[in-house]
Amino acid sequence: MMSAQPSPQPSSQSPIQSSSHPISRFPVPELADLPDDIRQMMLAVQEKAGFIPNVFLALAHRPAEFRAFFAYHDALMLKETGSLTKADREMIVTATSAKNGCLYCVVAHGALLRIYAKQPLIADQVAVNHLKADITPRQKAMLDFAVKVCVNSQEVNEDDYALLHRHGFDDEDIWDIAAITAFFGMSNRIANAISMRPNDEFFLMGRVPRNK
Amino acid sequence: MMSAQPSPQPSSQSPIQSSSHPISRFPVPELADLPDDIRQMMLAVQEKAGFIPNVFLALAHRPAEFRAFFAYHDALMLKETGSLTKADREMIVTATSAKNGCLYCVVAHGALLRIYAKQPLIADQVAVNHLKADITPRQKAMLDFAVKVCVNSQEVNEDDYALLHRHGFDDEDIWDIAAITAFFGMSNRIANAISMRPNDEFFLMGRVPRNK
Amino acid sequence: MMSAQPSPQPSSQSPIQSSSHPISRFPVPELADLPDDIRQMMLAVQEKAGFIPNVFLALAHRPAEFRAFFAYHDALMLKETGSLTKADREMIVTATSAKNGCLYCVVAHGALLRIYAKQPLIADQVAVNHLKADITPRQKAMLDFAVKVCVNSQEVNEDDYALLHRHGFDDEDIWDIAAITAFFGMSNRIANAISMRPNDEFFLMGRVPRNK
Amino acid sequence: MMSAQPSPQPSSQSPIQSSSHPISRFPVPELADLPDDIRQMMLAVQEKAGFIPNVFLALAHRPAEFRAFFAYHDALMLKETGSLTKADREMIVTATSAKNGCLYCVVAHGALLRIYAKQPLIADQVAVNHLKADITPRQKAMLDFAVKVCVNSQEVNEDDYALLHRHGFDDEDIWDIAAITAFFGMSNRIANAISMRPNDEFFLMGRVPRNK
Amino acid sequence: MMSAQPSPQPSSQSPIQSSSHPISRFPVPELADLPDDIRQMMLAVQEKAGFIPNVFLALAHRPAEFRAFFAYHDALMLKETGSLTKADREMIVTATSAKNGCLYCVVAHGALLRIYAKQPLIADQVAVNHLKADITPRQKAMLDFAVKVCVNSQEVNEDDYALLHRHGFDDEDIWDIAAITAFFGMSNRIANAISMRPNDEFFLMGRVPRNK
Amino acid sequence: MMSAQPSPQPSSQSPIQSSSHPISRFPVPELADLPDDIRQMMLAVQEKAGFIPNVFLALAHRPAEFRAFFAYHDALMLKETGSLTKADREMIVTATSAKNGCLYCVVAHGALLRIYAKQPLIADQVAVNHLKADITPRQKAMLDFAVKVCVNSQEVNEDDYALLHRHGFDDEDIWDIAAITAFFGMSNRIANAISMRPNDEFFLMGRVPRNK
Repeated sequence: MMSAQPSPQPSSQSPIQSSSHPISRFPVPELADLPDDIRQMMLAVQEKAGFIPNVFLALAHRPAEFRAFFAYHDALMLKETGSLTKADREMIVTATSAKNGCLYCVVAHGALLRIYAKQPLIADQVAVNHLKADITPRQKAMLDFAVKVCVNSQEVNEDDYALLHRHGFDDEDIWDIAAITAFFGMSNRIANAISMRPNDEFFLMGRVPRNK
Repeated sequence: MMSAQPSPQPSSQSPIQSSSHPISRFPVPELADLPDDIRQMMLAVQEKAGFIPNVFLALAHRPAEFRAFFAYHDALMLKETGSLTKADREMIVTATSAKNGCLYCVVAHGALLRIYAKQPLIADQVAVNHLKADITPRQKAMLDFAVKVCVNSQEVNEDDYALLHRHGFDDEDIWDIAAITAFFGMSNRIANAISMRPNDEFFLMGRVPRNK
Repeated sequence: MMSAQPSPQPSSQSPIQSSSHPISRFPVPELADLPDDIRQMMLAVQEKAGFIPNVFLALAHRPAEFRAFFAYHDALMLKETGSLTKADREMIVTATSAKNGCLYCVVAHGALLRIYAKQPLIADQVAVNHLKADITPRQKAMLDFAVKVCVNSQEVNEDDYALLHRHGFDDEDIWDIAAITAFFGMSNRIANAISMRPNDEFFLMGRVPRNK
Repeated sequence: MMSAQPSPQPSSQSPIQSSSHPISRFPVPELADLPDDIRQMMLAVQEKAGFIPNVFLALAHRPAEFRAFFAYHDALMLKETGSLTKADREMIVTATSAKNGCLYCVVAHGALLRIYAKQPLIADQVAVNHLKADITPRQKAMLDFAVKVCVNSQEVNEDDYALLHRHGFDDEDIWDIAAITAFFGMSNRIANAISMRPNDEFFLMGRVPRNK
Repeated sequence: MMSAQPSPQPSSQSPIQSSSHPISRFPVPELADLPDDIRQMMLAVQEKAGFIPNVFLALAHRPAEFRAFFAYHDALMLKETGSLTKADREMIVTATSAKNGCLYCVVAHGALLRIYAKQPLIADQVAVNHLKADITPRQKAMLDFAVKVCVNSQEVNEDDYALLHRHGFDDEDIWDIAAITAFFGMSNRIANAISMRPNDEFFLMGRVPRNK
Repeated sequence: MMSAQPSPQPSSQSPIQSSSHPISRFPVPELADLPDDIRQMMLAVQEKAGFIPNVFLALAHRPAEFRAFFAYHDALMLKETGSLTKADREMIVTATSAKNGCLYCVVAHGALLRIYAKQPLIADQVAVNHLKADITPRQKAMLDFAVKVCVNSQEVNEDDYALLHRHGFDDEDIWDIAAITAFFGMSNRIANAISMRPNDEFFLMGRVPRNK
């Protein structure tokens, strides 16, 4: 139980799948067969995280889409301007991915949310019902808007902008909230369609203090 | 972080609230002020679990309702006949409470599900999307029916019974599935209306092997 | 037509079913086979109402659940404190049971609503569209909230409490509205799942002045 | 209570409103002020029914629309060909008007349904949940289709026709079902928009045997 | 491509169908077989428009319904009082027919909207999302209300009237908006049920300036 | 009217906005201020199409997102393998963008659909109700699946794959359908959030034969 440790010396010959369950309905390429740039990205993330998140492995089936996906992801999630913190961004992903019933994103980004927010309970709260979560009024307004973009974007209007302005978000922040929601709405649909499975590691990350 | 340990020597003078957040929008009675039978129930559960689940404390505000609630709960969840395992029952609660956006029940019963199923990943899977969970076809049929009772009970019909029969459920099992779903649908609505907060302890229970 | 009179001398040998249609998809026990306490409850209600409402007969299939169900029912519906009248309570049940498509509860509690409110038209109005019913603004606010708890409890918030306060409801009244809605949401789901049929008697009760 | 008897000698000077509640949000014309053809229609229906249904009075505010409305109504509801009985037609109206939350049509056409079907319980059953009503499989198929036309007409397809054919409906019957549903969908929306109130008389019609 | 020109000398012997696709799932009568009044109507519209809109041909299968339909249509759409312009009326039809997924009405009335409004882009804007269309605040309020009558008429209330009053609509205008929406809601459902096909001519009408 | 011709000699100084309406709620950069690679892309598309689609201008506000967006777009839409034709791809975009109420994508991709399919009526048909469009059974299955991914991706399962296989789609085609739907679901949400306006040119493209 919970044996899903990354194998100690990952070979570049085989993708590391942390359980016996398939991680995608589609073929998952061997690391050795991947284009260099994609393999390097995977080894870098593995170095940093200790394992390769399955989204890398599953999307590598389509290298051109892989590259565009992560370029877009990084443009939104690693962006260094604006008032959204890393925790805010992951909170948006967690809340909206739950609305879309996307197991991969709720679990993987919920883990990141716990880590960035340093709140071990926050991801489950936000995934089940952000209205009952331990968040600030500013974050509630942010998630209310993200959920609207997620489920009813056609009714977004100036009143939404005005309300967010009152909570200190500027127009560029609002673009960020909308774009993150939209990007992960795409990710959610792909993950659902190909049955992308979250790595077992994510379920526990950020729940237990490091120095326990 | 994660400091929510039950205090070592709980006094019968004060309810044990494991964080600074209120556990209910309504007054939570002191243990000393409760009717004897209710206080005894609480001390018994505390002895066993190490803490008093907040549903006991929150519903104690209404003793007559408290007694009926737990009598009903026990009739359905501690029932020793039929083919539903304890894990099956908690799985029904987790899946349907997620549909109702009930933070308390998803977190508390998700913990019980992890423990009874001995599967640390199962609760998050079932809460986000039971169609992507590591469950058997029999459990999938059970949850499909539970979700139908939860969101669209008026269309339940003989075809639903026939399908469940093919998975080995008999009529009494089907009553159990429906009644558990219905009972926790009640619980979900009360918890949402009174902002009942899950104990911090539940979030981590069953995620880490005991003998780690 | 409308011959559904209770037979004049009900034998304890046979449940009184007022028509040829089954009253439940599940077995209905003989009065003689029931535990004493349950049989006594049935005879008492029969004495008072002139017939045994089918919910007693149908739920008697599960004695432990029967006892908890009626204990809960009585705690909410026979409660003597708070500002909700008996008519208010039945109005909540009628309106929310209609949203859940529960034939038993709309018909049986609609009858009680007519009787308690002494308004022969009110139950049909509330069941079809409470916004067009002959009710007070206070009752409209009560039903608006009950419908929200019924269909979207996860979004209940402090604004709902504040609005009800302005109509003279205090927090305890609001708990009552929510709990009645939640309890009958459970009842609706069970009744739909087991095809519980309302007694023919209920359809006409309270529609014709007694002294006609 | 239930005092809503038609006044004994209706004057052509004043519309007969059977209660103190307005029957429409819009002005209701005096009989004397109406065009001859419309006044004659009203007197004829009053002669036959004992009262003037409020739909006549409310729509008379717009004589051209009134004439087209009743011409359409009669073409569909008094049609003498095809296999739909008068009870079938009123059953369609009752079931679909309930989906649209139209108090006037559920109450008025529910009364007609009870009378034509000679089943005093049928209208309440169909209004709350036709899947639990005392109807034939043919009538269930008819109502399933009517409800689809009512709430999701854009997905009507050949499979719907084939299923109805298997129940003995021919294409012309299917046109009838769809057109009745569509016409009363219009009527429901107008009635809701102008708060058209059903005559008190309708609520009790057909519930008590004539020769009681 | 786009060959759907009305044949130059239409014979009264054959209905003019502008493509090889059937225009209705039901039989379409020959002009020669139609009652005189209906044939005269068709020839008149053909004279004016250059072709016979398929709604005339498809509904002629039911002469009594045809007459009532067009009498109602003309009462609402050719009405010469009130503040709704012809463009306003067609805009209501286009927006609400899109909500009902009715191909015939979106295409045919979208064409009329373009012509009356003299705005070649307006129909596509209103059909996809009226909130992003080049319309006035008054027209936006009108369409918001029409969409409410279309999808949720049971919640229409005095606040809706008050809001429209503030935009300069009087009660009679509001009746018009509601009745047009309701009438075309009927038309949409019939068209969907019988697969009524819009004439090819409509798709291009009003998109290109006449004097191009 | 319809004056939206690209200005004859576009200066690199000013973005070409074809009407007085803003094309985005956010600032639209001057061509001269853009990074070289982005300006070159715009000039290339302008050379080919005769105008710069507003999506280029609106997204250029965020260069990093712009680059990832078009890289992803091209990977999916310019892909040269698989059985989806260019018309199939644009049909998916048109149908799903209509579900999301995205004016930009319905109008712009509807234009491309008309051109690739050489069917001037097809885009309006697919946008309003693909079930009534002039498409093949294979295309209908493709759009049914795309709509499911668009509105309910969490329920995608093996039955969906099996059905598409029966219509000749292989797994890679299914990935394409899902990914195109997902990508434009992102695009729809961004366009709705920033009020991206389609160029006037798109509305008429592909509706009139070239050699008219």
